[in-house]
Amino acid sequence: MTDVTLAFDDNEYIPAVAQDAESGEVLMLAYVTEAALEKTRETGYAHYYSRSRDELWKKGGTSGHTQEIEEIRVDCDGDALLYRIDQSGGACHTGYESCFHRTLDGEEVGEKVFEPDDVY
Amino acid sequence: MTDVTLAFDDNEYIPAVAQDAESGEVLMLAYVTEAALEKTRETGYAHYYSRSRDELWKKGGTSGHTQEIEEIRVDCDGDALLYRIDQSGGACHTGYESCFHRTLDGEEVGEKVFEPDDVY
Repeated sequence: MTDVTLAFDDNEYIPAVAQDAESGEVLMLAYVTEAALEKTRETGYAHYYSRSRDELWKKGGTSGHTQEIEEIRVDCDGDALLYRIDQSGGACHTGYESCFHRTLDGEEVGEKVFEPDDVY
Repeated sequence: MTDVTLAFDDNEYIPAVAQDAESGEVLMLAYVTEAALEKTRETGYAHYYSRSRDELWKKGGTSGHTQEIEEIRVDCDGDALLYRIDQSGGACHTGYESCFHRTLDGEEVGEKVFEPDDVY
């Protein structure tokens, strides 16, 4: 149970931003349900809810690129979460450390940390 | 126009995370429409779309706590944005530097940088 009241949306999701607790880098944005958040708190590893696959998933369940939770923060309106985490490997399935590895103009600004073909 | 194709959701929103470009602190999460994003690029200051008020707004339009854009990044799926910004004053209407000023347990971890009564 949480002490801060959360405002899940009509679909019972809430966005969660994952940030590397040490470097401060923003790694990804995904969605959680109440069940995904509970699983995250219970296990100490980031879990999310896939809207396309319609299922709860553990980040790194396939790749091993798990996210160990350092702290979970909530915003003023209670409708967004910040997972401050310790990332194993890279957060992005494309091999980059962060899913935010491009500018809006398409310039690559992120660091590639693994080869997807070696992992998936 | 953007070179990276964006995946706006069914409501034509996309979440945007604002991060202090210098400190790396995650300041807030809000939503943008295509028009809000265009206004942001055009002016160099963060604009968002208020889902509750159903209108485009300039961050800091009332408070003066504007967000000057350093860089806009997009995630691998094109369905989330990262505004790397230079924040004037504080990002949170409660007076905190960041809207993510509490842990999920309700512990205050953020820094208060202004008195809301003096600003609004």
